[in-house]
Formats: sequence, structure tokens, C-alpha cells
Amino acid sequence: MDRRSFLRTSTLGGAAAAASTLAAPAIAQGNITWRMVTTWPRNFPGLGVGAQRLADRITAATDGQLTIQVFTAGEMVPALQSLDAVIDGSAEMSHGAAYYWQNKSVGLSFFTGVPFGMTSRELAAWVRYMGGQEAWDDIYDQFGLQGFLSGDTGTQGGGWFQNELTGLEDIQGLRFRTPGLGGQVWQRIGASVTNLAAGEIFAALQTGSLDAAEFVGPYNDLALGFHQVRKHFYTSSFIEPGLATELVVDKAKYQELSSGLQAIIRDVCQAEYDQVASDFYANDPRALATLVNEHGVTAHSNFPDDILEAGANASKDILAEILDSNDPLTKATAESFVSALNLLRTRTEGTDQTFLAARERFFDLSDLG
Amino acid sequence: MDRRSFLRTSTLGGAAAAASTLAAPAIAQGNITWRMVTTWPRNFPGLGVGAQRLADRITAATDGQLTIQVFTAGEMVPALQSLDAVIDGSAEMSHGAAYYWQNKSVGLSFFTGVPFGMTSRELAAWVRYMGGQEAWDDIYDQFGLQGFLSGDTGTQGGGWFQNELTGLEDIQGLRFRTPGLGGQVWQRIGASVTNLAAGEIFAALQTGSLDAAEFVGPYNDLALGFHQVRKHFYTSSFIEPGLATELVVDKAKYQELSSGLQAIIRDVCQAEYDQVASDFYANDPRALATLVNEHGVTAHSNFPDDILEAGANASKDILAEILDSNDPLTKATAESFVSALNLLRTRTEGTDQTFLAARERFFDLSDLG
Repeated sequence: MDRRSFLRTSTLGGAAAAASTLAAPAIAQGNITWRMVTTWPRNFPGLGVGAQRLADRITAATDGQLTIQVFTAGEMVPALQSLDAVIDGSAEMSHGAAYYWQNKSVGLSFFTGVPFGMTSRELAAWVRYMGGQEAWDDIYDQFGLQGFLSGDTGTQGGGWFQNELTGLEDIQGLRFRTPGLGGQVWQRIGASVTNLAAGEIFAALQTGSLDAAEFVGPYNDLALGFHQVRKHFYTSSFIEPGLATELVVDKAKYQELSSGLQAIIRDVCQAEYDQVASDFYANDPRALATLVNEHGVTAHSNFPDDILEAGANASKDILAEILDSNDPLTKATAESFVSALNLLRTRTEGTDQTFLAARERFFDLSDLG
Repeated sequence: MDRRSFLRTSTLGGAAAAASTLAAPAIAQGNITWRMVTTWPRNFPGLGVGAQRLADRITAATDGQLTIQVFTAGEMVPALQSLDAVIDGSAEMSHGAAYYWQNKSVGLSFFTGVPFGMTSRELAAWVRYMGGQEAWDDIYDQFGLQGFLSGDTGTQGGGWFQNELTGLEDIQGLRFRTPGLGGQVWQRIGASVTNLAAGEIFAALQTGSLDAAEFVGPYNDLALGFHQVRKHFYTSSFIEPGLATELVVDKAKYQELSSGLQAIIRDVCQAEYDQVASDFYANDPRALATLVNEHGVTAHSNFPDDILEAGANASKDILAEILDSNDPLTKATAESFVSALNLLRTRTEGTDQTFLAARERFFDLSDLG
């Protein structure tokens, strides 16, 4: 099933063919302009800024031979139509998060992140060395697309609450904003989950139509002002241990590029995977310090154990359901993911966590800072 | 003090000038070949392979316009003369680890990693967003060099021992192979530390002239066969929480490149920072499984608490001594590092570790794998 081929020869065939014939002479002349649609608002910290920077880096590395023009959410199409804009030929690239396209394949969730799943380091190891990219390619091939990891927020924040949580009883019926599979987890453990767009969260918290919300983490959340209406912030999410962004490219047009230009797109995406994570690792703690020291926010690192345990069980149930999927590519992706995570966590737990725990216990530098 | 300028106008001036005049027309013709010397043996897992891959990626992304020719350890110069080969103009690039050049500046240690210091994510955040690159540039500017992060092993293994360690008393006088600042830490807490080149470790363990050794981690150590002569492996190092590699470029020649070629070198280095880490995260646990399941190795994740605590205290003492350095650039680098680590660890501890601890306690997928 090649949906893109289908589209080219049907309703949108004319436009796609026009774009294609335009591209060919442009390559010969050494100058191409490609359109990148993104799911992020312009200047959105970390992610929107990252999409623009990724575009600029491709343009710079090619000395303008491949110039990327960015259209942020709503400028060409609404955020959640970005992928379709590439499929129908309106744009050559989309920058967003793969889990937005779960309606196309649930398997795509794994390339953004799933509850209790992989950290950014684990995800990259799976994608680059343990079959992840191949599973992803199999899914996007159906649509004539090529996906690349292009950023990661690292482990996100747990959310904003009116009061400290004492246990599972506190979240029964709690009107909580959290999207995707993470939302399903919170729903299963008793919350009343709703999804609101970023711009609507603050007002809903203020009017009380929402009790609590999670969005990204200190860096993004500070900008949206949630601290003005909720004072208890949980610093660690169990539903988003990482959130990877993707760059998706029209595969046929990508393959028409010179091998050098193809390499530059791949290389810049991988460089941005590190750059975006670095941005969050540097700026989340700065923002958290501002929230605590200047805005009276109380930071809690741990959810109560019974919430964590119930969340883990619900996350595992969801994963088991995906493993039972009727869609063979979703099933294969989930199997590859679980197998990789079971191996990867032996290193994370036996090496990384062991070091970090020792550093936390024994190495206090605060008097040297 | 511009040592490189000095060298150009003195003993090696002729060769350097010749290389420079050769480079100019090559750029105009669109074809340059640069020589990269590395500190790694050819095909050395993770790091040597990474240096070659980095070179190939630059060549590929530039469609051969900038072709990188790799000379592994000893092929042009001995490993530990790689940086000098760039300074004296024999090569345009060096791939190695900054802490090899502590004789030029102790501050360079921080760009590889220091005992109880930064993880790979923290290091990248410091270098890219918190003044690290600027501090590094100030040091290398003295030598006419430009440094880029180009890989990271992640947290390394703790080492190979004859028996399980029960506490500090077991390491008094222990003849232990471990280099650099980590070696100083082990020396201060009672070990008899020696540094041997990679190729000499196995024989020294076998003959008993060495009691114990640490090298990199399962991926590299398996290849060297340490498991044949020592059966107790500690999986987590407190002296190497990360080990970053560097690409160092002749700064004047770098600045003569087109902005596109400069961007490609930067982008590929950053992509490789992720690629090398992914390689280790994927292949360390595979190698550890082989060591345990096929070679009868016992894996211990934790050193005894009194070793960790003494190691942390010694590490802090060394850091305090570097902060008192008479070299203003070393002092400034250490201050920037400590300040960044104090901030970064609030995120690592409050967000990453919190998630990882919850996953370890509550999320067992072994029956799904």
C-alpha cells in the first residue's frame, strides 16, 4: 500500500507532479528550496526553536544549495495536518512528533516515547543499532515518507497540581490535562483525562475547569505561566521518560537529492537530536530554579509509590495490548522495542544509575560552586 | 601566546607554509584532502571505528569536496603525538581525547570527563549552552586549534578484579591499572596505580604483575579478553561517568574553509557525539551478557560504600586543587564546570534519576520480551 503513489495519481496528482518537475531542474542548477511544515508555534522554546535551527543548519551546511523554508503551526496547515502536507506534496518536510500520527499507525508512538519507556539515550541506541530505524522505515514506507530523529526533550516534568499528592485516592476523578498514551495511563488509574492545546491550558487551570495539567517541563511551562495558578510541580514524569521529535521527508524527493545533500539532512537531524537535548538539560534547571526561587513553586521529585506502581501496571497493560495488535508493523515495532529496552536497561541500571546514585549520595560540590 | 604562529615562523615554518599554499588552490578547485591523525588503533570498537566513521561522514556530506584521510595510532605519529601533529602542520585534524593533553593545560581534562563529574548529557549541555565551549576555545586558541566534541562512551565500567571487593581495605596496595585523574583518585584512596597501554594490560594481569585493571567497558574489554584472567567485573565507574572524544582542527585552516564546509565539520562532530554514545549503549549490554552468560564473569554494579565515599572525597580534593590553579584558563574552566554541574545535577537527580528509579522498581517487562 503506497498511499503517496495513490495520491499522486488521483486528486492531488497534478500538484505533486508539478512540484516534482519543478524540483528536477532546480537540482541541476544546484539550488533547491524545500518547504518544512512544523507542528510547533514559532519560537516555541526548545522544540519550535529547534525546528527552525535544524532548517537553518541544512541551509548553512549546503551553502544554500538546499534552502529550507519553515512554516510553523497554522502558517500553511494546522499543526496536526503537517504529515499529510508532506504526503500530499504541499511540503517536502515535516517537523513534529511521531506519536501525533497514531491514527496512521500506533507503532509510530514508539519513535516519540511511551509511558515507562526509553530515555533519549536508550531510544537513540535502539533506533541506530537495534532495529528501531528499520521498523520505523517499514511503517513510513507505506506513505512514501522517510523519518529521522531530530530532537529530544529528555525526561519531562510530571505536571502541575493544586496540592501535594498523598496517593492514588487524590487522583480519582482529577481533571488532568495529558495527551496520548500517557493520558490513557492516567485515565486507567483513575484520573479524568482531557487533552487541551497548549494555549488553552492556562485559562482552564485558572477557571478551575481543569484541576491539573502536564505539558513539557520547567523550560516550556514557565513560559506558559502555569505557576501563577498551580504551586505544586512534580519534576519527573513516568509517562514521558523522553519525547523525541522527528523530521519526516518525502522519500522520493529525498532519494532524488545528491548523496551529499542526503547525508547533510541525516547528519543535521542527528546533530539536532543532541542539540535539543542539550538545550533542555541546560535550560530546564535554570527555569526550575526561577519557578522555585522567584515564584514560590514547591517542587516534588517523586509521585507517591502507589501512583507510580499503578502507572507502571497500566503502562505495561497498554504495551501488552499493542503487542497484540492486528497490524503486523505495529506488532513488529513493539516487539523490537520491548526486546531492546530489556537489554538496554541492564546498562542503564547497572552502570548509569549506579554512578548517579553514588554521586548523589557522596559528592556534594555546593560549597565549591 | 600563539604557539602555532610561532612554529610557522620558526623550525616548521617551511612545511606549514607549503601546506597552506597547497590548500588555497585546492579550495578553489573544490577538492581538498585533509589528514586526520587519531589516538586509537584501527578498528578499535566504538572509538577507533567512530573516528573513521566521522572522517567518512565528512567526505560523504561534502561529496568528496573535503576528503578526510585517516592515520590511526602509529601510522603517522604515535598516539600521544596526535595533537602536536596538528600544531606542527603535519595533519589538519586530530581525533582523540582532550585529557591526553593535560601537559598543555589541566583544564582540558574537563572536556573528556573527570572523576564524579558529568555524564554525556550533562557535558553536552555545559559545552553547548553553559560556557563550556567558550572555555575550551580559550585554551585551544593558545595553540591555534579548534576543538569539537565528537563522541562519548557514556559511563564506563569500574574494572576487573580477582575477587569481590568488601571495602577499602581490599584496595590498599592493589596494583591497579587506571590512567589520568581517575588514577590519582585510586592512588589517594590506597591503590598502587599504574598506567599501561591497552595492548599490555592482558599480559600484566595474566602474569600477576597487575592485580586489577579498568579500561573502557564491556564492549571494548571483551575484545581484549580480560575475562580470561579476571572474573569479577564492576559495571559502573565513579572516575569516568562519561568519556568524551574530541576532534581538533587546525583553526587557521578551518577558518579558510567555506562556511558550508565549516558547518559540515561541526554538524558531523555533533552527530557523532550521539552516534558513538548510541554504539556504546547498544553494544555494552550485549557484550556484558556475553561475558556473564558465556564466560562465567560475575558482574557487580556497586563498589562498596566506603570505596565510593573515599573516592568521592578524593575526587573533590582534586577538583578543589584544580580550582586553585595558577593557570587562569584552567581555573576559569574548572569554575565554569563546577557551576554548571551544580545546576545540571538538579535536573539529573530530580527528573532523570527519579524516573529511572521508578522504572527499575515498578516496571518489569522481562515476561514480555
